Amino acid sequence: MIKVVLLGAGNVATHLFEAFKESNEVEVVQVYNRTKTKLKAFTKYTNTTNSLSELENADVYIISVNDDAIESVSNSLILDNRLIVHTSGSVTIEALKKHKNRGVFYPLQSFTKNKEVDFTTVPMCLETALKSDYSVLETMAKSISKSVYSINSNQRKSLHVAAVFVNNFVNHLYHQAHQICKENDVPFKVLHPLLLETAQKAIEIDPKNAQTGPAKRNDNDVIQNHIQQLPQQIQKEIYSLLTKSIQETYGN
Amino acid sequence: MIKVVLLGAGNVATHLFEAFKESNEVEVVQVYNRTKTKLKAFTKYTNTTNSLSELENADVYIISVNDDAIESVSNSLILDNRLIVHTSGSVTIEALKKHKNRGVFYPLQSFTKNKEVDFTTVPMCLETALKSDYSVLETMAKSISKSVYSINSNQRKSLHVAAVFVNNFVNHLYHQAHQICKENDVPFKVLHPLLLETAQKAIEIDPKNAQTGPAKRNDNDVIQNHIQQLPQQIQKEIYSLLTKSIQETYGN
Repeated sequence: MIKVVLLGAGNVATHLFEAFKESNEVEVVQVYNRTKTKLKAFTKYTNTTNSLSELENADVYIISVNDDAIESVSNSLILDNRLIVHTSGSVTIEALKKHKNRGVFYPLQSFTKNKEVDFTTVPMCLETALKSDYSVLETMAKSISKSVYSINSNQRKSLHVAAVFVNNFVNHLYHQAHQICKENDVPFKVLHPLLLETAQKAIEIDPKNAQTGPAKRNDNDVIQNHIQQLPQQIQKEIYSLLTKSIQETYGN
Repeated sequence: MIKVVLLGAGNVATHLFEAFKESNEVEVVQVYNRTKTKLKAFTKYTNTTNSLSELENADVYIISVNDDAIESVSNSLILDNRLIVHTSGSVTIEALKKHKNRGVFYPLQSFTKNKEVDFTTVPMCLETALKSDYSVLETMAKSISKSVYSINSNQRKSLHVAAVFVNNFVNHLYHQAHQICKENDVPFKVLHPLLLETAQKAIEIDPKNAQTGPAKRNDNDVIQNHIQQLPQQIQKEIYSLLTKSIQETYGN
């Protein structure tokens, strides 16, 4: 068994903890959080502490706190020859530079509090400063997920931007569509199947080949009608810019 | 049985034909297309013709041709007291104004040639000029789909713009993410689960409440890093505009 101390009690830490509970390779021997009340949910299953000076002995220490707190938590850890990792998509491995044995254990998924996650489908992006530390992270990752990738800090940085596009920005376009429907008394659920099919298609074929619509067809009458129809200035701008980008992509 | 003549042999017409084959309420008695070779796929199952003067007797005539040809096909039809409908999301019912009994039978989905569609999940958006014509369209729609909506031309117009957002524009964001991954040697499939989860979440909860990310959090360090990191000018513009729009939405 790989012994793990989990530092943090937020969304990612909680979901990781749940996943490790089912793992045959990993045992979370302790959960740390500076706020005692947030540890309540864990006390039933493992040791907990709100003091960094009381950390237990373990093979791996997983820092799963807010991005801007990672480095300071790392600097507070007085541990020699232990593997210290964080779970962030946007923080470089060098945030842990105080420790020779450092790494990243990044689950690339959008976690919602209180919503169960099938961790077996969550891509685990791994990195270690020392090659010799990689296999322990790999064993941990493979014990909870079927998708495990070696991703260095540069790659993870670009993944994080790409994730903003497929998650944050896509969701905002859903919101804009939702608004357009609402203003015109159309139930948004009419669009649900199209929305899902669009996502599924992008997984089956290269999204470049899946592109359709007035921008791709260069159908300027429809484009002008749509822009004119949109009630908000920012919606018009989004429509124009994405249309321009599609047209540039397909050489129109 | 409701007798139907289908005018057109493209994507939508073909998928509708397949759906009606399984229907107990609708019989497609004839398929028309001006190009004879495109009728081949239908000859095994029903009558076909490439001449508008040879149309058979039917209850409903479905014009499923390119948007810009709908009006001229409609004007060529010499049929009295028959219900004439088109299947387009972006053409008003008035394109069929030559006919007193006119309507719209619009399946809101993105159809791909040679890819089977589960029509029972496709939202059918119906409209008729005369109230008395609605029930026949409703019977037809309900015989192939579980989602049937009464949607007037104005609503359909706004649905069509909203569909451009959730389908065309979202797909283009997938493409941009795909590019970012490619340029950094990261497999795009690492993002597949996030992409799907984002779509599924928007169906379960209002996308406004599902929003996360640096723009929503007003995390300007991350935002500036991301913009700087993007290689293409148009990607920077898309990132900036969508970030601005998210910030305006959440009052940042």
